[in-house]
Amino acid sequence: MARNPCFKVVLLSVSMAFIPAALSHGDQVSLSDDTLTCIECHSTINPGIVGDWRKSLHAAMTPSQAMKKTGLDRLVSSREVPEKIKDYAVGCAECHTANPDRHKDTFEHNGYQVHTVVTPADCSICHIEEAQQYGDNLMSHAYGNLQANSLYRSLVDSINGSMSIEDMKLSSMPSDADTDADSCLYCHGTEVKVKETRTIDTDYGEMTLPVLSGWPNDGVGRINPDGTMGSCTACHTRHQFSIETARKPATCSECHKGPDVPAYGVYSVSKHGNIYYTKEGDWNFKSVPWTVGKDFTAPTCAACHVSLLVSEDGKVISRRTHSMNNRLALRIFGLIYAHSYPRSPDTSIIKNKSGLSLPTELAGGEAENFLIDGSEKDKRLSEMKKVCLSCHSQGWTDGHFDRLDTTVRNSNDMTLADTKILISAWEKGLAEGPDRNDSPFNEAIEKKWIEQWLFYANSTRFASAMGGADYGAFNNGRFYMSKNIREMLEWMEAQRNAGK
Amino acid sequence: MARNPCFKVVLLSVSMAFIPAALSHGDQVSLSDDTLTCIECHSTINPGIVGDWRKSLHAAMTPSQAMKKTGLDRLVSSREVPEKIKDYAVGCAECHTANPDRHKDTFEHNGYQVHTVVTPADCSICHIEEAQQYGDNLMSHAYGNLQANSLYRSLVDSINGSMSIEDMKLSSMPSDADTDADSCLYCHGTEVKVKETRTIDTDYGEMTLPVLSGWPNDGVGRINPDGTMGSCTACHTRHQFSIETARKPATCSECHKGPDVPAYGVYSVSKHGNIYYTKEGDWNFKSVPWTVGKDFTAPTCAACHVSLLVSEDGKVISRRTHSMNNRLALRIFGLIYAHSYPRSPDTSIIKNKSGLSLPTELAGGEAENFLIDGSEKDKRLSEMKKVCLSCHSQGWTDGHFDRLDTTVRNSNDMTLADTKILISAWEKGLAEGPDRNDSPFNEAIEKKWIEQWLFYANSTRFASAMGGADYGAFNNGRFYMSKNIREMLEWMEAQRNAGK
Amino acid sequence: MARNPCFKVVLLSVSMAFIPAALSHGDQVSLSDDTLTCIECHSTINPGIVGDWRKSLHAAMTPSQAMKKTGLDRLVSSREVPEKIKDYAVGCAECHTANPDRHKDTFEHNGYQVHTVVTPADCSICHIEEAQQYGDNLMSHAYGNLQANSLYRSLVDSINGSMSIEDMKLSSMPSDADTDADSCLYCHGTEVKVKETRTIDTDYGEMTLPVLSGWPNDGVGRINPDGTMGSCTACHTRHQFSIETARKPATCSECHKGPDVPAYGVYSVSKHGNIYYTKEGDWNFKSVPWTVGKDFTAPTCAACHVSLLVSEDGKVISRRTHSMNNRLALRIFGLIYAHSYPRSPDTSIIKNKSGLSLPTELAGGEAENFLIDGSEKDKRLSEMKKVCLSCHSQGWTDGHFDRLDTTVRNSNDMTLADTKILISAWEKGLAEGPDRNDSPFNEAIEKKWIEQWLFYANSTRFASAMGGADYGAFNNGRFYMSKNIREMLEWMEAQRNAGK
Repeated sequence: MARNPCFKVVLLSVSMAFIPAALSHGDQVSLSDDTLTCIECHSTINPGIVGDWRKSLHAAMTPSQAMKKTGLDRLVSSREVPEKIKDYAVGCAECHTANPDRHKDTFEHNGYQVHTVVTPADCSICHIEEAQQYGDNLMSHAYGNLQANSLYRSLVDSINGSMSIEDMKLSSMPSDADTDADSCLYCHGTEVKVKETRTIDTDYGEMTLPVLSGWPNDGVGRINPDGTMGSCTACHTRHQFSIETARKPATCSECHKGPDVPAYGVYSVSKHGNIYYTKEGDWNFKSVPWTVGKDFTAPTCAACHVSLLVSEDGKVISRRTHSMNNRLALRIFGLIYAHSYPRSPDTSIIKNKSGLSLPTELAGGEAENFLIDGSEKDKRLSEMKKVCLSCHSQGWTDGHFDRLDTTVRNSNDMTLADTKILISAWEKGLAEGPDRNDSPFNEAIEKKWIEQWLFYANSTRFASAMGGADYGAFNNGRFYMSKNIREMLEWMEAQRNAGK
Repeated sequence: MARNPCFKVVLLSVSMAFIPAALSHGDQVSLSDDTLTCIECHSTINPGIVGDWRKSLHAAMTPSQAMKKTGLDRLVSSREVPEKIKDYAVGCAECHTANPDRHKDTFEHNGYQVHTVVTPADCSICHIEEAQQYGDNLMSHAYGNLQANSLYRSLVDSINGSMSIEDMKLSSMPSDADTDADSCLYCHGTEVKVKETRTIDTDYGEMTLPVLSGWPNDGVGRINPDGTMGSCTACHTRHQFSIETARKPATCSECHKGPDVPAYGVYSVSKHGNIYYTKEGDWNFKSVPWTVGKDFTAPTCAACHVSLLVSEDGKVISRRTHSMNNRLALRIFGLIYAHSYPRSPDTSIIKNKSGLSLPTELAGGEAENFLIDGSEKDKRLSEMKKVCLSCHSQGWTDGHFDRLDTTVRNSNDMTLADTKILISAWEKGLAEGPDRNDSPFNEAIEKKWIEQWLFYANSTRFASAMGGADYGAFNNGRFYMSKNIREMLEWMEAQRNAGK
Repeated sequence: MARNPCFKVVLLSVSMAFIPAALSHGDQVSLSDDTLTCIECHSTINPGIVGDWRKSLHAAMTPSQAMKKTGLDRLVSSREVPEKIKDYAVGCAECHTANPDRHKDTFEHNGYQVHTVVTPADCSICHIEEAQQYGDNLMSHAYGNLQANSLYRSLVDSINGSMSIEDMKLSSMPSDADTDADSCLYCHGTEVKVKETRTIDTDYGEMTLPVLSGWPNDGVGRINPDGTMGSCTACHTRHQFSIETARKPATCSECHKGPDVPAYGVYSVSKHGNIYYTKEGDWNFKSVPWTVGKDFTAPTCAACHVSLLVSEDGKVISRRTHSMNNRLALRIFGLIYAHSYPRSPDTSIIKNKSGLSLPTELAGGEAENFLIDGSEKDKRLSEMKKVCLSCHSQGWTDGHFDRLDTTVRNSNDMTLADTKILISAWEKGLAEGPDRNDSPFNEAIEKKWIEQWLFYANSTRFASAMGGADYGAFNNGRFYMSKNIREMLEWMEAQRNAGK
């Protein structure tokens, strides 16, 4: 490596810049020599991420300092942290050179064994509990849950695959890796692999770097070069890793907006969203634990599904969880009906009675063996209600969930009505479905049916679950559920009229 | 009641916590003994709402103190306030034990006569003018305006009702109360009634509580257990009741987003919205009266429709009104055409010449007897223009409203063209409409027609009225109005071709 | 003019109010006598805009003071500024009485030659470079690029034109000027002309004022009464002209939301948007130059396309440009395919090989002579990547743009498949297209085809280009591209079945 000639000046400016403003402890924070070496060049090459990291808690506190906290305000869940890193700020080197042998993307870089892709295993050095919990979260399996399910893969191909027309004949190609990465796998996560290395000239001399496939990606179920699944930065956006970001709903909106899973859209027209958008300027998003009624006065996504919440007298209302299914009895994201939550985060193992990789039967009913039972559902609902009860009465809370039950039942009924029409079309040969070994997702009438359960029934249920009725009435909700059934019937009649 | 053993400690912590930070007056604020008793338990049971209320002006000021203000900054419009409450902060008991005899939901609770549902009559103890004005607001009648109109009820049933298919035969059920509450009535308001009482075990002993039907709900036209109509907390979100919340557009977005009434969506792409989203951090949302150009530099929903606005020299630009129709000459929300505003807030009394409960004729024209006349329209438009003129020239303002007139006319024409096609379909027996005593809203082609006036024409008009052109061009606007007519015609031709 | 009796008092209050709070220099700022005269009345007539301007940098600094800055923090690009204005704050008179002879909208007003419409030529007195750059921006030609292109005009007519039905016969009218101004030209810009003058009574006596046609308007390509093109206030919203507003994405959202050009919608679900919405409260939007990683930690629209960006060590990452095409190699807004960027900002001169005013051929291929070549594309892409590299590695950045290439190719293929179906329909006489001198945009099936390239393919590409995958999957993206082709084919088959 050509040594940067302005080494000392840069180093000085780095040190000078390091009197973190918002420190709550009196101790000095040192950067490791390794990290100082990284910053030396990268503060010029990538000033944005270095500057972003400088604003982080990682830059302002060492693991040792963080581990002095032993109460609910503790952020480092690991009991022990390696000697080598514990008295330095958590800088570039502490993460990007961790576990070098595990990382197939490790490469020699100016004398260091560096890897690009930081993974849950790397984060677990300090945050072991969160990493473990996350492994039980459906999200960590999001890649395989899509890719290893042949039924869902046929949906992906029918959406992402390219089509061409010659002499009015349609040819459909299965989708390619780049397109999947740019579509479904953006959220589900790609498989990141080293495909080759290349040597490039830089201002700092010649460098040999790995070229990754499936890169860039921050998907929640990313398959990493160290074999782990997930990406902590999907929500804890690098390089500031601010808990404020993870707690605000815009973070979740990246993958939960719609029309398939319109949680963010619903939140934005809910009373909770209304309060958030009008008062969040007065809230404290950094306080740990998070005090209901003091730090914030209406829930964000994280408050209901993830965060450690306490009341002002210090009582725990709900414990932090990164296994976000913990408080979810039902999966209101219909496949194709809303259903009891899957037992295992790996849903690719599910088979319904017809042998389809679906948690429900096409004609209604659940693949029970793979789904949680009534007592687990009661337990989860009760966990969720604890959050509700911190602001609402028992009567309010029960009334809310009773209504959701009605909506789940009705939206499932509306999906069933639509599905019966499609099954009839398959039986009459008006469309080709699984009974003829064809994808149930590729033809025009099948795509219309997809809209019923994936967009309209889901929107209706999310609107109910999160109190944003606007979405469940006209905006992709009940109006379109009822319209869809009528149009499916009209299509059947037109086919009959055409003598089919 | 089992007396809470930690009574004194809690009470102490409550009192200690009560040196409200943002007080503008030097006087001490006391809580009534009744309110202290509520807080004693509920700060533990529902810490969120107690904490939220602590941030409120209600917690920081007594009615007596508020009534010392006699100018435009006065917030208590009642001339007198009962002795019993006037020298205490407005706490739990002051609202939830008011008017006990009027409230059918009153129940005995630890020696108090408490009710759950606080109503406009309760709020009117201090805010009499606002409650009275609100009674003239169409919104206060939103429940009956939907439920007592058989035509609109048939629309509701066609959207919310569940459907099933047996042997390819469709059965449609009318909608159920839970679904209506989760859909239309979320905004319009439910009828809240005591359906039974139940006795539950709590940490504080056994309690007998009323179970309410139609609950939870905060709809603007809610029928309350004391017989009043409306819910002040629809906009003045409890328990902080912050004027900041009511003045910010996210509050209105809960019910005015779309696609039927896309006011918020339009605002968000208007120049006004543009200014709001980029500068609101510098604005003062709490100042009363609200000074144009100083406290804020672009209108929110409230600024144009509700708020008391003054110029920096103290001149009143527009008076506060909770009868939000005051500045609206036209109802651009088409039923099925945009029309002169209804005279009475109770629109269920309207009948057009064909006997339909519609403010317009299906084939065009207004049900004039029920709508305001030209001079009232001029007066209202002139009131609205006063707000515009505080930032815009007369030429700008007139140009804007001239264009709106064109858009109203054109969008009504596009609705008429669509309606003529549907009427022809009814006449030819291709669909069943009111002439055969069938709902005009249930069949596929009728639902397509609904989209024309309820989504596309409305979006086009709101985009024009509020200067968010994006919504009126492609996003549910003119593109879809023109497409809809062409598709309706194509459908008619296909029916003809099918020999119908 | 009747002299305002409270002249002195107003004047005094104006002067008193003028100790601008946020001044960074010690010098006194005077208002010109002309501006003081304006404010004398207009602070009462239009308090909003006067108050808004008071918060501006224009009100707090004279051109002379601004010109003392000679580094990257300089905001006045002109080398010389007229003597008459340079030692006064930039007030009402400085802009609204500039270049009186050039302005056809100049009118005599209380002894002054005033014009309503401030134009790029007026702004260029101090901001010459920005005005010149903007002339090379496609946006400055947005009026003619739409109005002088007969093909696009037929699209406008098919969308904005009014329709009527008599005896089930459709009549279509071309669109009228008011509707165009309320729709497409809201963003593209109107032609603003003096159509007449009128004399009105005001509180200050009788006034004769010009009445403008095409007014109000702030479109980016507005044709002004002085012959210039554009409106600086489209983005630099008057009268605060805050750089904060121009740098925030809500400003761009006014015209770039969708579904035709969903840049804002995509941004809002991108990781960049996620960071912006959760952290922007901590950013410095006023600092010039704008320091990556310090002032802000994720790009807004302006950061990538317009702003002068530096790293913390003062190195320029990208220079300010108001010719926003500078970093755009491809125009991903398909017409009808994504294509190499046009050479000239005047796109009305483009003709493809078939003689259509389109930058691409209907059946695929580019109108190369009018579009930039490979080396210019490489140069522009490299400029854009400089911004990316300030936070991302070369591998990340290259991977991102490789994926965009795939998405451009696939979305063009999906448009081609759809177009081939339509061309076949034209050939078979199932619809009337350009080969029969009919608009390709007016029939139902043609409108379906428009959705393919204008909504679905565009959404897919914007989602890819800006990393907001949600938009490219279900929300107007790939799901709908594939559905559209299947439905177009089904329509063809139904036409065949109907014996056509």
